[in-house]
Formats: sequence, C-alpha cells, structure tokens
Amino acid sequence: MYPDGVAGDLGELVKAKIRDVPDYPQPGIIFKDITPLLGDGAAFSAVVAGLAVGHPDVDKVAGIEARGFILAAPVACTLGAGFVPVRKKGKLPAATYSEDYQLEYGTATIEVHQDAFAPGHRVLSVDDVLASGGTACATANLVQRAGAQVAGIVVLLELSFLDGRSRLPDLPVESLLVV
Amino acid sequence: MYPDGVAGDLGELVKAKIRDVPDYPQPGIIFKDITPLLGDGAAFSAVVAGLAVGHPDVDKVAGIEARGFILAAPVACTLGAGFVPVRKKGKLPAATYSEDYQLEYGTATIEVHQDAFAPGHRVLSVDDVLASGGTACATANLVQRAGAQVAGIVVLLELSFLDGRSRLPDLPVESLLVV
Repeated sequence: MYPDGVAGDLGELVKAKIRDVPDYPQPGIIFKDITPLLGDGAAFSAVVAGLAVGHPDVDKVAGIEARGFILAAPVACTLGAGFVPVRKKGKLPAATYSEDYQLEYGTATIEVHQDAFAPGHRVLSVDDVLASGGTACATANLVQRAGAQVAGIVVLLELSFLDGRSRLPDLPVESLLVV
Repeated sequence: MYPDGVAGDLGELVKAKIRDVPDYPQPGIIFKDITPLLGDGAAFSAVVAGLAVGHPDVDKVAGIEARGFILAAPVACTLGAGFVPVRKKGKLPAATYSEDYQLEYGTATIEVHQDAFAPGHRVLSVDDVLASGGTACATANLVQRAGAQVAGIVVLLELSFLDGRSRLPDLPVESLLVV
C-alpha cells in the first residue's frame, strides 16, 4: 500500500516523506518541507485518502492558501464535495468575509466569498500543518459566520509544542502525524 | 453526469459555472471567477476528470501557484502521479531553478525545486487560465531545465484573444473552454 518500502501507518509514511530544511525561512528555524511527499504519487494518494476518511458526508472542503489547496482540493474530489478556497486578503474577486489572526509579529487576514457556504453546510477544513492554530481558528470563524458548521479540521502534521488544539477547544481536530 | 441541469460537453459546464466579476482586479477588467465551479462538487469532479483524461502515463503533474494548485493536485491524484508545486519566488525552502516572465507591467519569477523532476520524467502542466502564455512558457522552461519533458499543458479556460498558444509552438496545449 505504501511506496518505497514504508510500512505501517500513515503517520510513518508522512514522517518518512517530509524533509527538514534548516534555517528556512529564517536562521534557527527548521522548516518541514512536504514537497517530497507530494512528489511521490503513491504517497500523495495515500495521504489524501487518509485525510478524507471518516468524512463521507461533508458538503464543502475548505483549503487554506497556498499549501492547504494542494491537499484540500483532492480531498474534496475524493469526497465528491465542493472546494472552497480560503485566501489571503484581496485575492478573491467577489464579496468576502474577513478574519484577522495573530502572527508571531503582527497580524494577517484571510477571506472567503460570502456565498461560499450556506447555512447548515457541513465543512471540512484541510491544511498541511497545525502550528499555533491561528489560521485554523480564523477559518472556523469564517465558516460559522456563514451559518455553516465545522465538521472537522484535518492536517497532515501537528506541531504539538505550539499547542494549536487549545485554540480549537470545541472542534474535532485530526492529524496524520504529531511531532 | 453534469450537475444542475447542465447538458453537453465539459466546455458548456465550465461556461455555465464561471462567473464574470466586473472591475476586478482593476476598473475595466472582467475577471473570470472559477470559485462557483470549484464549489459544486459534481462540476469540480467532472472538470478534474476532463483535465486528466488522455494523460495516463505522466510521472508528475505541475501546478502553478495558487489557483493552479486547486486543479493540478486532484489531477495528480486521479493519475496516481506526483504533484510538483511551481511557486512564486522565495516560497520553496530547498534549492530551486527560477524563470522570469513578462507581465503587462514589469516581470514576475516562478520557481521549482531542483530535485522536483528527474531526466526523462513526463510532466503534465495544469493551470486554471491560459492568457498570454507567460506563466505556461516559464513553467515549460523549468521542466526542461531539469531534463524532463512537457507531456502536455492543460487549462480550464483559454483566452484566445491573448494568443498564449503562439508562445508555446512546440507544446501540446488543451483547454476545456476557449473564449
């Protein structure tokens, strides 16, 4: 089932296929690069299936710009659900809802189209990494402002030392690998 | 096969599901917004299948940041191929190849990881829109610099009045809808 001799569960596959890039984007940071995982067709398909499983009944899958798009879009296709891009400020052409969230220094803003979700929709949020939870929390707020419901938050990789789950206390969070 | 009463071919589906947003990103421009198409699960799946068909033997699918990711990633999954992100300058953590291309005013730069493609790989390039062809041409150059081969360039929507095909004379270009 898994490529290149990786045995066991999806977490082991993710661990084997992510590479550490030191000093990116700044000195002292070790960046978790998912491109080797994406570039391996069998691994990519296995991970997409693993993110989608357990959510057969969602109406929309929300993907967070930009790496989140790469995982969320095939999850939407797998589930037969619609795909909704959650974008950086100013990138969506029609009327939007906006949410600000904190970064280490300063704030950022993400947006969705106001007509992307309808009241009652069940929405699965997909991203590559759960770190401090700021983006995931802002995405959940955007979904709820439209009257829709967060059915789940799924990520490839959770950085548990940043404790993002504490910002998402009432939401079901799943990660394929926790480090 | 098609959602919401759309009959006929994929081009008609794309036409029915794209909306025109006037004066975005600048006054006088009519923006072709693909989010209604992405948000309709049946339409999205049909379009992904239509972009993938005819390319069963590619090794990698290249998606161009950011909207190209949304189409290219599920095409890669459908084909069982690896996904390679073609990103804006400075977004990829490891060693890259870069290509500059002309915009209406000024230039832009896109990059891929140097180890994303291997010599002999057959690569399918996927994007939402073919306009003047600058991005598609730069992507083809990046593939070829790695010794790989462009097996095809597929897009949802081709703006024929901008004549992007003339910049891609030796490459197989397919679009689901030409306007």
